[in-house]
Parts: sequence; C-alpha cells; structure tokens
Amino acid sequence: MDLQHQFKEYIQWVNNKLEVYLTNNGTKNKQLFDAMSYSIFAGGKRLRPVLALGAYHMFKDDTQEVMPYACGLEMIHTYSLIHDDLPAMDDDDFRRNKPTNHKVFGEGVAILAGDGLLNYAFEIMLADALINKNVKYYNAIYEISRAAGVHGMIGGQLVDLESEGKTIDIETLDYIHFNKTASMIIASLKVGTIIGDGNQNDINNMEIIGKNLGLAFQIRDDILDIIGNQEMLGKDIGSDQQNEKSTYPSIYGLEYSKNKVMELTQEVDDILSKYGEKALFLRELSLFLMEREY
Amino acid sequence: MDLQHQFKEYIQWVNNKLEVYLTNNGTKNKQLFDAMSYSIFAGGKRLRPVLALGAYHMFKDDTQEVMPYACGLEMIHTYSLIHDDLPAMDDDDFRRNKPTNHKVFGEGVAILAGDGLLNYAFEIMLADALINKNVKYYNAIYEISRAAGVHGMIGGQLVDLESEGKTIDIETLDYIHFNKTASMIIASLKVGTIIGDGNQNDINNMEIIGKNLGLAFQIRDDILDIIGNQEMLGKDIGSDQQNEKSTYPSIYGLEYSKNKVMELTQEVDDILSKYGEKALFLRELSLFLMEREY
Repeated sequence: MDLQHQFKEYIQWVNNKLEVYLTNNGTKNKQLFDAMSYSIFAGGKRLRPVLALGAYHMFKDDTQEVMPYACGLEMIHTYSLIHDDLPAMDDDDFRRNKPTNHKVFGEGVAILAGDGLLNYAFEIMLADALINKNVKYYNAIYEISRAAGVHGMIGGQLVDLESEGKTIDIETLDYIHFNKTASMIIASLKVGTIIGDGNQNDINNMEIIGKNLGLAFQIRDDILDIIGNQEMLGKDIGSDQQNEKSTYPSIYGLEYSKNKVMELTQEVDDILSKYGEKALFLRELSLFLMEREY
Repeated sequence: MDLQHQFKEYIQWVNNKLEVYLTNNGTKNKQLFDAMSYSIFAGGKRLRPVLALGAYHMFKDDTQEVMPYACGLEMIHTYSLIHDDLPAMDDDDFRRNKPTNHKVFGEGVAILAGDGLLNYAFEIMLADALINKNVKYYNAIYEISRAAGVHGMIGGQLVDLESEGKTIDIETLDYIHFNKTASMIIASLKVGTIIGDGNQNDINNMEIIGKNLGLAFQIRDDILDIIGNQEMLGKDIGSDQQNEKSTYPSIYGLEYSKNKVMELTQEVDDILSKYGEKALFLRELSLFLMEREY
C-alpha cells in the first residue's frame, strides 16, 4: 500500500467535509466562522481524523459514515490549540509558520472561536447521530467527550500549565502526556472502531495502540524540539530547554527516548499485524510517525 | 402556590446534584475542579435549571429524570460567564460580589475551567442518555448544543464583543439579546418539555415563552443598570452608560423599555394560563422576573 497516497486521500476527504461544515453560513456572526476556519485550515496534520478513518477502514468501507466524527475530533483538537496558544497559556505567536488565532483576530475572538469549535463538534456529531439512529454513534460521541474532558485532554492541559517552569517527576509527565495527547488519539482509534462495528476485543486493542502511539508521538515531539529542523517544524526549536521544561529527553536522555519511541511503536505493530492486510495503513502510519521530522 | 418556597426547593435540588457532579474526584487535575466549583457555587440564580424544572413539572413529576440536563444547562451558562469575564472580553473583576474566576485562579486556569464546564456538561448528559436509552434525551442534548453554539449563545457573545464601544442598530441589539441570552432560556424550557414528554405544540409554545422571557430578562437587566441598587445587584451600575453601550433604555428610553418588559411578560402569561394549575409556578416566576431588583 502507498501510505503517502492513502494519507493524502484521507486528508482530502476530511478537508472537503470540514469545508462543508465551516462554510460561512453566518450572518452577523461572520467573524466567528472566519476565526474558526482560519485555524481549522492553517495546515494541521489531520492526525486524529486520519487515525479514525484508518481504524474504521479495518472493519468497514463506507467512509461517509465516520466522517462527522472524524471532523468532530479535528475541531476539538483545533480548539485546544487555539486556547493553548493564548498569552495566558503557552503564549505562542506562531503555529505551523502562521500567526496564531489571537494574533490575527484578537484574544476575545480567539477564546470564542475555541469555544465555538468545541461546541460545534458536539452539535454536528449529535445532528448526525439523530439522523442515523444507532446507539453506537452516541457511544462514539460519549467516548470523545470523555477523552477531551476534565479527566482527559483538559485535565492534561491544566497539569501542563501548572508544571510550567517547574521540575516535575515522571509520574506527572506521564499524566500530562497521557491526558493531553494520548487520550484524544485513543479516542480517534476507538471511535473509528466503534462506528466500524468492531467488537469489544478490537476496541480494547485500540486502547493499547492509541496509548502507545500517543506517548510515542509526544516523546518524538520532545526529541524534535532538540534535534529538529525549525523550518520543517514550523515553530521554534530549543524552547523546552530554554523553558527548563521536563521532558523524556531531559529526564532520560536522547538515546533512551529514541529507544522508547521504537519500543512503543513495535508493540503497536505486533497488535496490528494480527489484523492482516486491513491494518497495513495504520502500521505504516505508526512507523512514519516514529521517524517523522515535523 | 408559594413561589419562593418552590423556587428554593428547585435550587436546593440543583445545588445538591451539582455538588455530586463537581465533588473533586480529580487527582492531579484537582485545581481544575476547584476552579469549576468556585464559579458554579458563586451564588448564581440558577434560572436556567429552574426553568427546565418548571417546564418539566408541567408535564411530569419524576424530578430526577430531568436533573442531569438542568445541571448541564447551568454548567454551560457558568462557563460562558467565566469566559465573558476575562480581560480579553468584558474584563470584570467581580461578579455577584465575589472576585471573578480569573482573579482567583489566573487567566489560564479560568480559560480551562470554562472549557472544562462546557465539555463536562455534554459528558454528564451523554452518560445519562446512554443509560436511559430514549431518543428524547439526545434530542434534548442536541437542543442545548444548538442554543449554546455558534448560531446561538457564542454567536451572540461574538457580536456583543464586536459591538463594544460602538453605536449599534436595534437589529444588532436584538441579535445579541436573542442569541446571547434568550436562546439558552428557550432551550431550558424546551428541554424540560421534551424530557417531560410534552407534545410538539407544547414545545412550540415554549419557544415563544422563552423568546419573550429572554428578551424581557435582558431589558430588565439593562433597566437595572440604570435604576438598580449596586449592592443588591452585586455589580457596578451605570457601566452601560459609561461604556456608551447601546441598550433598549438608551435607544428607546426607560418608560418604553419598562412597558416592553410588561408586554412581553403578558404574552407569556396568556400562553401559560391555558395550562391551568400546572403552569402556576412558571407564571409567577415570569412576573417575578419582570419586577426583579437583582
């Protein structure tokens, strides 16, 4: 299978559907849609929707079925970035080589654009579930709400914020990684599996795969902050060291961290290999993520 | 019927249930629950959950059934206040005589506490719906998501933010009032009616009642900003005039505005009076709101 080709196709589908959802059908609230669209179409990797599509296609072929949930995942991810970039949080002026939302629209609008995307994600997913009338859709939405919420992503962001400028122990670092990053990656895979009619064993496998991929993804991020290429990354490197941020490389060193990423990815591959050809895309994708340069 | 007594009982039920949801079961994310609880228990009027309960009891008696949705409405209302008070938005230091969330916890935590309450509202409502397995619960959640969203409350906040320091026309003012305030009041009444198994005609009636109450509520707010008692209101008065904010009193004058509130409330009373004794609570409540001093 050609990973590049499949990946591009998935991204195209997701982008087309996001266009439909975010086409400005606002009147007086036009600027809200402008701000939401700006960040949605600022060049994200679409990792979460692609994972949802990849998992879904291990079990079922009707792409359109999973699309509203794939888009919902991306909207929630994007809202978290908009709020994360605010001066009161990470205070980032650039993301993916473009000015962050609040630099373009101002802080007030950026806060509302984030709120809007989170709320809109639930709105479009619920609308779809009400039309298609199967409890699995509600299970998928609930899964996403848990992963994105106070015991998931938002909890991770809070602890990350509290840990700024402090030395933290590995337990706290794992809490941040698991909640801030892995939980939405787990949810993406599980949602694809739930909507694809995978069984409970499949869903459990996705929990492990997502946990490993999420942690590997985050450690790779921290490695790239040390050895990465600023231009390819679209953001400054060396910022973790400058901010004395505790990361896997800073605690365990670069070699250990690289090995950890390989180990986690190997475990993912072992599970996915049992699914035969259907899992080839996700296997190649996880290998690609392990070695990514951006 | 004793309005005061019933009102207090409703508030007690809502507070008890909110306590259950917000009891700090966090570990490392403890501060998130602290910040969410702080604003939830900062003395809100609980108008939206009370309206949901009042509407529900016009049709059905089993209070517990509607409670997760009543609490979800209050969480969403509270998140909107936390974000509205931020320096980038209304920049308010006090609300109900207490320091606003960001003054106590800092802006970053306040942003996350708002995000957390919005997300948590969907989480608890979905969890309840998945247990009780009836499509009406999902209809109720969808109704709330629409009312709170980009074509509802958040849209209204955006236009309100854009209008700051500008003279706006009555059409824009109505847009703000309808979306920022009335839409969640309409949703509260409709959710109570949907879960109480009211029919489509009842739901349509609630749409009109909510629209009138919402507009009347907002105009009364603006009247109180001129003639109100600072201590009773728990916030500064005269701020609209100081900020040259366009309001019903500033555009139409005080007398016209007072009459408009009476007119809107009368229409509500006409509809509710058709429901006989069951509607007494909502009728008294709307009269009380018309004359409220805080």
